[in-house]
Amino acid sequence: MNLTGNLLLAGSEKRGANGEFAGVEAATGEPLDVLFGGATAEDVEHATKQAWEAFSEYRETDLSRRAAFLDAIADEIENIGDDLIVRAMAETGLPRGRLEGERTRTVGQLRLFAKEVRDGRFQELRFDSADPGRKPLPKPDLRLRNIALGPVAVFGASNFPLAFSVAGGDTASALAAGCPVVVKAHSAHPGTSELVGRAVQTAVARAGLHPGTFSLLFDAGFEVGQRLVADPRIRAVGFTGSRRGGTALIDIASRRKQPIPVYAEMSSINPVILFPAALKNRAADIASSFVASLALGAGQFCTNPGLLLALDGEGLDAFVSQAARLLPQIDAQAMLTPSIAKAYCDGVAKLTGHPEVRVIASGKPGSQFDGTAALFETSADAFLAHHELQDEVFGAAGLIVRCKDLEQLEQVLDVLEGQLTIALHIAEDDEPAARGLVPKLELLAGRLLVNGFGTGVEVSPAMVHGGPYPATADGRSTSVGTLAIYRFLRPVSYQDFSPALLPVALR
Amino acid sequence: MNLTGNLLLAGSEKRGANGEFAGVEAATGEPLDVLFGGATAEDVEHATKQAWEAFSEYRETDLSRRAAFLDAIADEIENIGDDLIVRAMAETGLPRGRLEGERTRTVGQLRLFAKEVRDGRFQELRFDSADPGRKPLPKPDLRLRNIALGPVAVFGASNFPLAFSVAGGDTASALAAGCPVVVKAHSAHPGTSELVGRAVQTAVARAGLHPGTFSLLFDAGFEVGQRLVADPRIRAVGFTGSRRGGTALIDIASRRKQPIPVYAEMSSINPVILFPAALKNRAADIASSFVASLALGAGQFCTNPGLLLALDGEGLDAFVSQAARLLPQIDAQAMLTPSIAKAYCDGVAKLTGHPEVRVIASGKPGSQFDGTAALFETSADAFLAHHELQDEVFGAAGLIVRCKDLEQLEQVLDVLEGQLTIALHIAEDDEPAARGLVPKLELLAGRLLVNGFGTGVEVSPAMVHGGPYPATADGRSTSVGTLAIYRFLRPVSYQDFSPALLPVALR
Repeated sequence: MNLTGNLLLAGSEKRGANGEFAGVEAATGEPLDVLFGGATAEDVEHATKQAWEAFSEYRETDLSRRAAFLDAIADEIENIGDDLIVRAMAETGLPRGRLEGERTRTVGQLRLFAKEVRDGRFQELRFDSADPGRKPLPKPDLRLRNIALGPVAVFGASNFPLAFSVAGGDTASALAAGCPVVVKAHSAHPGTSELVGRAVQTAVARAGLHPGTFSLLFDAGFEVGQRLVADPRIRAVGFTGSRRGGTALIDIASRRKQPIPVYAEMSSINPVILFPAALKNRAADIASSFVASLALGAGQFCTNPGLLLALDGEGLDAFVSQAARLLPQIDAQAMLTPSIAKAYCDGVAKLTGHPEVRVIASGKPGSQFDGTAALFETSADAFLAHHELQDEVFGAAGLIVRCKDLEQLEQVLDVLEGQLTIALHIAEDDEPAARGLVPKLELLAGRLLVNGFGTGVEVSPAMVHGGPYPATADGRSTSVGTLAIYRFLRPVSYQDFSPALLPVALR
Repeated sequence: MNLTGNLLLAGSEKRGANGEFAGVEAATGEPLDVLFGGATAEDVEHATKQAWEAFSEYRETDLSRRAAFLDAIADEIENIGDDLIVRAMAETGLPRGRLEGERTRTVGQLRLFAKEVRDGRFQELRFDSADPGRKPLPKPDLRLRNIALGPVAVFGASNFPLAFSVAGGDTASALAAGCPVVVKAHSAHPGTSELVGRAVQTAVARAGLHPGTFSLLFDAGFEVGQRLVADPRIRAVGFTGSRRGGTALIDIASRRKQPIPVYAEMSSINPVILFPAALKNRAADIASSFVASLALGAGQFCTNPGLLLALDGEGLDAFVSQAARLLPQIDAQAMLTPSIAKAYCDGVAKLTGHPEVRVIASGKPGSQFDGTAALFETSADAFLAHHELQDEVFGAAGLIVRCKDLEQLEQVLDVLEGQLTIALHIAEDDEPAARGLVPKLELLAGRLLVNGFGTGVEVSPAMVHGGPYPATADGRSTSVGTLAIYRFLRPVSYQDFSPALLPVALR
């Protein structure tokens, strides 16, 4: 593995001169080899200028060529081989199995978008013929197609070093739409980012595309990202991260002379509703799968089940005692970065010290870089009175809210903010009550699921990974699945164009 | 015609107690009969609460019933008969023929959306079946549909008292999507608004819908609109008006706890590019149709051709002298309101007094309530140096920009803000040059047209009436044509739902 720490600027590479930082071994906090140079204002401008130049060519690439390019990125990522997994393991602390699975998903995503591009339906071609004899006015010839928005700034996500970073879902869907991409690598996994960035750069060259189609920038801080979002050549933003980070970018984007859409996925506690008959029939089973979902990847999923709502009673007691039995067996796991570990630790401490919150159980303790799973309980009365109890604690922390009755559970739902997912655990007898809740839940989340947990997001044409604010900035969109491509398109109508003037697809 | 000046609040009516105002005869500035009572904060809240209550029922109405409701609105508007045209003529100064045409368009729009609702494709139903045997993980059952966003606040537009007001395009598409609507009537045509509002109210009752599905509020100022946009039960906004008004609403919407989309159409000068061969062949013809388009409806169209770009030369001279011959024959026309007439007059005065601008010709003078068409000329150098020359002057004012060559014309295009339409006038010899410009123009506007003018917006599945900021707040959408319905929808994914739990359409 030959890492350089260089910026990948439109087909070439360059040492960034705006400070230096190292990747950090998540499990130990020790710096890894290679220093990464931060991008200067000039580097950002060079990348966006090149992206703008590439745009006019790239957005009109023949669809089969664009699809082949996406396939080539997938191939090149596979070609990196085990080096990618080894580096990502070191930088993120995620286990091999998880990262291998994420790689599979990442290349699968690229190939799925390649298919979507070949299919061409995203262009939304529409033809409405002229009728010169129509009264009182002749009817013009109108044709419509979707065109790409322009260069897109993509922010790598700390928790998906492959599937939502340099060549992840945002990049794949933006490239599929015909938008060049400038990636701001996440400083939590710069080496992984460079490896994938080089794979994309190689694919750009193999496909003979304008080199400005892709650039990769490093920065230990916020400056590069802020510059990117403010840059007039950038026309949309893909972001997955914290609420503070997301809203800061939204503010910058809305203050531009020409505001642009920011597709920011920001926070979600993914409520799980445990219905009485389900708890009566299989409280222990549900508790087992809940604990597994809570602890998966040290709880560092956007869809981690952070909130459980259930009615007071024996069923819930059985659930709680089984969870309390299982949780202490869960090993502490290295978190993605030392600062994420610290924020998790602070969040857990806040819940532990909250006068209205009871600690149910904790996982095994670990080092200062690890996250220890933790489960808490509170009453619906307390939850309704303390808004801070719905703040996301990023990691394997869950809060059970004990409700007096279904009515109070509905009151809790009424104060919840927008979510990515809501899960319902039901048995047959619960169906009437569950059916009654669905209309409320639809308005709260982008995905509803029955007898499962939100972790494990299928890349599907029927997937919505998005939800009302603040789960995402724009609940009308999804960042996972084929619908994600529509985020980077806008319709244009052509009236009375001769065939020679029309875009090829509309002739 | 029995006007009351009452608010139409969710199936009942009520005298608004927050000030009073009269409709004004556009041609004379004289108040018309009936005083309209402004809505109080309580009235606004009553309307939005009722809309929210109606929402859960209305969004799940059977599609054929919802379509019948839209058809019923169209019928009821026709049932008003000539009273509607007479009142609208008085309030807006628009001639009978124009208003009768606009009524035809308005009811046609409602019936088109009724068809779209029956068709059901807007629901975007998607099915991705389970595969329990998939390795390494079983594949869940995923189904997707679009659901309505929630109650929509619609702002009546001064320049389309029927087609973009109480039951215009925004209302029709929001109702089609399954969203209740609260309309803030434009104070320029309150009587017209009441008549149409009563028609909608009757249709709501005839269809047996929840009365909160529709409310109509009056206000002489800005307070009601601001309250509506800030109200947590309102989930989207449709607005056509000034840039100042639109950006004020966008600010309010983005400062909400849960920001909402504002579909604001704000300003556009709709550039017209006159190519050399076209001018050589038929400068006089183009000038005639340009003058007709410029003066149509006193120039009070969002798509009014306010800017002409052409290369210096004999062709342009011929165009200018023909336009200068025709313009003085154009009668002054009453503008929509005295304040619009004053703003137009101020805008024309500013251009007249601009050191870099030459007056080419003016239409016939009129009263202080009339708009007199006016045509100006400047050089591309001056246009490039003076950003204020691209400010919209709402009315029949046009500015010709004389460019040295195609390169300079492109420079002018490069500084233009986003537009609704761009028109190209070309002959066969111009095709190569025009083709070269199309990629640039696509990025500037929502609709491009050849050898025509943007006025006259076809209601079509292939229409885009929208464009990059500031033409509209969200260039990814259209407010005219069937695609407009998608502004008020968002996707929801259902995972592993049993048929009993699924929404009917997804079973």
